[in-house]
Amino acid sequence: MSTQNPIFIPGPTNIPDLLRKAVDMPTIDHRSPLFGKILHPALEGVKKVLKTATAEIFVFPSTGTGGWEVALTNLLSPGDKVLATRNGMFSHRWIDMCQRHGLDVIVVPQEWGDGIPIQAFEEILTGDKSHQIKAVLATHNETATGVRSDIGSLRKALDQAKHPAMLLVDGVSSIGSMDFRMDDWGVDVAVTGSQKGFMLPPGLAIVGFSPRALEEVKTAKLSRTFFDVRDMAKGYANSGYPYTPPVGLLNGLKLATEMLLEEGLDNVFARHHRIAEGIRQAVTAWGLRLCAVRPELYSNTVSAIRVPDGIDANRIVSHALEAYGVAFGTGLGDVAGKVFRIGHLGSLTDVMALSGIATAEMVLVDVGLPISLGSGVAAAQNYYRRGNGHAQKIAS
Amino acid sequence: MSTQNPIFIPGPTNIPDLLRKAVDMPTIDHRSPLFGKILHPALEGVKKVLKTATAEIFVFPSTGTGGWEVALTNLLSPGDKVLATRNGMFSHRWIDMCQRHGLDVIVVPQEWGDGIPIQAFEEILTGDKSHQIKAVLATHNETATGVRSDIGSLRKALDQAKHPAMLLVDGVSSIGSMDFRMDDWGVDVAVTGSQKGFMLPPGLAIVGFSPRALEEVKTAKLSRTFFDVRDMAKGYANSGYPYTPPVGLLNGLKLATEMLLEEGLDNVFARHHRIAEGIRQAVTAWGLRLCAVRPELYSNTVSAIRVPDGIDANRIVSHALEAYGVAFGTGLGDVAGKVFRIGHLGSLTDVMALSGIATAEMVLVDVGLPISLGSGVAAAQNYYRRGNGHAQKIAS
Amino acid sequence: MSTQNPIFIPGPTNIPDLLRKAVDMPTIDHRSPLFGKILHPALEGVKKVLKTATAEIFVFPSTGTGGWEVALTNLLSPGDKVLATRNGMFSHRWIDMCQRHGLDVIVVPQEWGDGIPIQAFEEILTGDKSHQIKAVLATHNETATGVRSDIGSLRKALDQAKHPAMLLVDGVSSIGSMDFRMDDWGVDVAVTGSQKGFMLPPGLAIVGFSPRALEEVKTAKLSRTFFDVRDMAKGYANSGYPYTPPVGLLNGLKLATEMLLEEGLDNVFARHHRIAEGIRQAVTAWGLRLCAVRPELYSNTVSAIRVPDGIDANRIVSHALEAYGVAFGTGLGDVAGKVFRIGHLGSLTDVMALSGIATAEMVLVDVGLPISLGSGVAAAQNYYRRGNGHAQKIAS
Amino acid sequence: MSTQNPIFIPGPTNIPDLLRKAVDMPTIDHRSPLFGKILHPALEGVKKVLKTATAEIFVFPSTGTGGWEVALTNLLSPGDKVLATRNGMFSHRWIDMCQRHGLDVIVVPQEWGDGIPIQAFEEILTGDKSHQIKAVLATHNETATGVRSDIGSLRKALDQAKHPAMLLVDGVSSIGSMDFRMDDWGVDVAVTGSQKGFMLPPGLAIVGFSPRALEEVKTAKLSRTFFDVRDMAKGYANSGYPYTPPVGLLNGLKLATEMLLEEGLDNVFARHHRIAEGIRQAVTAWGLRLCAVRPELYSNTVSAIRVPDGIDANRIVSHALEAYGVAFGTGLGDVAGKVFRIGHLGSLTDVMALSGIATAEMVLVDVGLPISLGSGVAAAQNYYRRGNGHAQKIAS
Repeated sequence: MSTQNPIFIPGPTNIPDLLRKAVDMPTIDHRSPLFGKILHPALEGVKKVLKTATAEIFVFPSTGTGGWEVALTNLLSPGDKVLATRNGMFSHRWIDMCQRHGLDVIVVPQEWGDGIPIQAFEEILTGDKSHQIKAVLATHNETATGVRSDIGSLRKALDQAKHPAMLLVDGVSSIGSMDFRMDDWGVDVAVTGSQKGFMLPPGLAIVGFSPRALEEVKTAKLSRTFFDVRDMAKGYANSGYPYTPPVGLLNGLKLATEMLLEEGLDNVFARHHRIAEGIRQAVTAWGLRLCAVRPELYSNTVSAIRVPDGIDANRIVSHALEAYGVAFGTGLGDVAGKVFRIGHLGSLTDVMALSGIATAEMVLVDVGLPISLGSGVAAAQNYYRRGNGHAQKIAS
Repeated sequence: MSTQNPIFIPGPTNIPDLLRKAVDMPTIDHRSPLFGKILHPALEGVKKVLKTATAEIFVFPSTGTGGWEVALTNLLSPGDKVLATRNGMFSHRWIDMCQRHGLDVIVVPQEWGDGIPIQAFEEILTGDKSHQIKAVLATHNETATGVRSDIGSLRKALDQAKHPAMLLVDGVSSIGSMDFRMDDWGVDVAVTGSQKGFMLPPGLAIVGFSPRALEEVKTAKLSRTFFDVRDMAKGYANSGYPYTPPVGLLNGLKLATEMLLEEGLDNVFARHHRIAEGIRQAVTAWGLRLCAVRPELYSNTVSAIRVPDGIDANRIVSHALEAYGVAFGTGLGDVAGKVFRIGHLGSLTDVMALSGIATAEMVLVDVGLPISLGSGVAAAQNYYRRGNGHAQKIAS
Repeated sequence: MSTQNPIFIPGPTNIPDLLRKAVDMPTIDHRSPLFGKILHPALEGVKKVLKTATAEIFVFPSTGTGGWEVALTNLLSPGDKVLATRNGMFSHRWIDMCQRHGLDVIVVPQEWGDGIPIQAFEEILTGDKSHQIKAVLATHNETATGVRSDIGSLRKALDQAKHPAMLLVDGVSSIGSMDFRMDDWGVDVAVTGSQKGFMLPPGLAIVGFSPRALEEVKTAKLSRTFFDVRDMAKGYANSGYPYTPPVGLLNGLKLATEMLLEEGLDNVFARHHRIAEGIRQAVTAWGLRLCAVRPELYSNTVSAIRVPDGIDANRIVSHALEAYGVAFGTGLGDVAGKVFRIGHLGSLTDVMALSGIATAEMVLVDVGLPISLGSGVAAAQNYYRRGNGHAQKIAS
Repeated sequence: MSTQNPIFIPGPTNIPDLLRKAVDMPTIDHRSPLFGKILHPALEGVKKVLKTATAEIFVFPSTGTGGWEVALTNLLSPGDKVLATRNGMFSHRWIDMCQRHGLDVIVVPQEWGDGIPIQAFEEILTGDKSHQIKAVLATHNETATGVRSDIGSLRKALDQAKHPAMLLVDGVSSIGSMDFRMDDWGVDVAVTGSQKGFMLPPGLAIVGFSPRALEEVKTAKLSRTFFDVRDMAKGYANSGYPYTPPVGLLNGLKLATEMLLEEGLDNVFARHHRIAEGIRQAVTAWGLRLCAVRPELYSNTVSAIRVPDGIDANRIVSHALEAYGVAFGTGLGDVAGKVFRIGHLGSLTDVMALSGIATAEMVLVDVGLPISLGSGVAAAQNYYRRGNGHAQKIAS
């Protein structure tokens, strides 16, 4: 693989040069005042990206998966009931984690490619008169299928059901790339990582806890130490950590939030939409279709593209790597071999996206699909041309 | 604080330029074959540093504290009895973690400054005829007090007691700097991090599990998902991770082990000893004494230096930072205000150590101690001069 | 301009990450033995890239233009006659330099877009019975017009004319990207820079002097000190420089030659040809033509593309930058406004080239040319697909 | 040599991390508007460091030696008379350059270790009634001997003699470290490089031309092209260069001037004085003396230290490197073997200086001098302690 070509996996993303330099720091004393000047602005920046005025942010040296464990172990007790759906690999894994921690998960089945079954959730919540369900788990953007669910509507469903369950949202592949409104949507815990919308190397679990969630922490009985937000909060109050903090990544997080806020979140989201839409236009031109079953589900950070029967989607990914040095994402779980994925989040330009489309096109022809070379590129070019009034000013 | 001066906290250490560059990688596809070429040599390198032929190595995006949690949750079940001593802040925290995870800890009290009470341990183990004690916890090097305990003798005590308890060792501030013999000492789990002997930024929990420990994993009932070594092992078998791996740090770990092994572990240990001994000579010349109560306990990675009554050791640390831009370590827990610490591990030369000694000396005079400027430096110079046959060839 | 997009100017090129890291060194003592371990392998590597066994290499902290001055001032005396043609901006500038240094230049006029008029040169040399002409100047690759002249044939012309003039070749935009045979072609001085085929930042003039050229140095009377190869040679003999050497760039040059030689010069040249040919296929598909008037003149490092009358080529370049964040080259001198240039040398992949083609295509449509989006991309894809057996293994 | 230890050669200096990162840029189009945003602030910053409101700044991809050639070739014609002294290796080399360019140099002999013989200069100038002398050459700080001459007094001498000769000053190892007043002192050309007070890697010749000097350029007949300030000025007017500019180094220069101005030039000079004075206190404590013959000549950027007869100063330098991995400077020319040099300019702290002193001390004892270990360190510590109110806030 050439590290010169842009990367099209759905995270970690291409890393802007400025962020690489921010992460690559000489050692500082993390117990000195200098550390607080990195930590606090980073936390404040994350709050703004999450659109929350009231939540507290905690950043663990971990990953998004660790962020899930932070959410579960700090809020729940063994045997607690939680409500979730399985509509992709990442929602599947979160359910698995719940079960391994002794939670009682009500799993609503759902087609991979579809979103959270909000109606079904509402019915279950309405039926749960004794409020046994402690939390609702939602994967905002299913990275495996390229499906974005509607968290605002999910919140309305909870409200409609007058159910007090907490709302825990995995925003790993949405936050910083697609609109996320922690306060407006009444999200109790939001989870993400450093390597997606924040365009950093992996290594951080970034979570936001609402005031209500912070209350629940006091009574939650699942065991935790490394992931305990109480120790973390105590540390932050003294501008420190309960253990050695990942200073460089935090310094990168500080700058990443500055870059996102300087570009303007609306511009960031519009850029992600534009790039994604160009890729979708290409997919249509190729005569292929997305795994996501309806346009309102289309993700602006990753597209899972179904391949015709008889074609092994994994071969597309391996051939792209071997022949052209370009990395796409394979299908996972139920859709393994049936889809390949183009990640289009983080630090990306229309021009980079075009090289991904052009490469995918060559690969599709190479594996035998009856596609005209240039057809998908032309569709995307046509779309991007109209959008070129928007300067391609993403940070670099 | 000037990042130009060497840093003298007991980790994270000064980072060699080559390691910073190895960590600072462009994004690669962590599901591509390229990742295996980073992962496997890194794991193999760690095995050699741990001096084990039989253990399996797991590297988590976390810290040493996370490494403890890996050890506990993968080997033990709620209510299990473990044996430990509290002879410093880090052993104290590990005990606290055990208790928060519902383990039953037999805590043998010990003076801070002394080592693991091996005789007491042996008596307790000998008395535990029904083998209720599942594990013995040992902090190889207490970073808070600069005390290195004798793990080889502890192993002999277990053998003497004919007790089957597992031996879990925190080698966070010893591994890669002082001799550590996982196989010879019959260590079941060894725990360390990236930011000490491996001279990398923080962000990795590095653990070694003996074959026996891997057996115990199957029956351990403490809940874990993120830290489950079974998922990790499954991932490694496919050259992957159960979640997004910290690719850059792993690439750094690969190179760090190559650098340590190229220098030669014996040379690395001798270098740490030489630098540490120079600092101890300076301490003696100043008329001060270490927190460690006997020479055989002296750590080669960190020295905790007692200050006379009436002097606030924290002021020494803050003054060094404000007046000279140099970071030393404060005292923690029971010895807060009573000791200041000079970290001397990782990427360090005699010359850098001399600047730390010279700075400490100015600070001690500034705070009013009746010390001759130059006296500690001269003692160290005298010692280092004799050692200069050893080329200062540590990697940079 | 986004620094994320590949750059398509004809140098400086995209810089591989490894070379950026090699250049970005901490300060070393350039009078210590460590410097020789950088200098000598760099010089040896350049020799291999130049395909010379007998020349001596000199590397000045300067640019290709400085390299010309090295060639002239070390070999010639005021009033000396030299033979040259003006077939582009860079040959023009070299002639200008000759004149400013008091040389008597016989300028053979030539169309911009054509190569060195070898037949005319041969006639002039044959007619110069008294051998007044001391040197023949040749621009191997005219960066302004994308024209590669045939140096081998030029050598034959000199031989045919039995003329002893020295052959000085500007290989700035050819060496390291297209075949260059210093010894076979009897080149007396070869000139290049760091920022083209060597893929480094600018800052080095790299010159090779044949044994005969080194003889001429002794009698050349043009004044020089900074650019005197005798001081440089004396320095190298002691592994030093006559002034402060550009250590980081030399370290980069050492690695750059290793990378080129490891890829294999033939593979490097084939890669440049393949990428260039794809771009030419796109140009043909657009119905445009190159500035270079015959296929055998086509450069594999830069294509100057003529735009139809009524279109300002400079607008193409400025629009590409403003609307898409991509840098192409403007036309220079006689062809300003009439051509735009796509640089395709150094560190480049087919995939990166496709993004340049796709961008150029959008720009051409934006400025009103009747071109089908995707047409040029398809032509290039078609060509690159056939070439994909060649792994895209250029260094990164 | 370990690149971890600070470097104590008199340039290139230790490079702050921020400057390394500023230099290490991805390629940008140097003909795009982005370049002007680097170039012009860099030039403006240099003006402020030179304390000139009227001069024009030119920055060449070259070195300080190239800067001399810029000064000579742009202002003088073959056969022109210039006045100079030879009081060290660098003034010697400048004279040599004059002679190789056909200038007629009046060389006033001077002891190495002494400054410019201003009285003698004044007499010669006063005697030159017909104003044959076109220029006076002055080396502000002789890097070989650690001698700073008094340029203000030299200006007064010219004024006193009512002589119109231009004043050309080599400020390579003074500018940015010691006070330099281009306008106040009536300096016509000031010359420096990137690798001294500007703390950057080598690769730039930085020159300032007064309005009068710019006038003289029009009639100067020494041949030049690469170094012609007229081409450079034409380029700058269009935010460009006459050839490929060293973009990364210019970007570094922009930041370096910002850092110096933010620290405050007076603070920068005070810092250099303090560090230098500490080193001089150590030299005195060792019973040694400087090459500079009077205190008012002492340089704040480099100290050349005389060693007793019978000791080879070069052995001191080589032993420091081999035994301790520390680089000092050797003696050059007339004082080779008689002095060793400690560079103390650019990016340095008291703490780093102490490690240099401590190392020198060990080396001096190793080679047999009867010096008490710690004595020089104590003298410096004593001096630095009093100065510690000045925070060590130099950029990093």
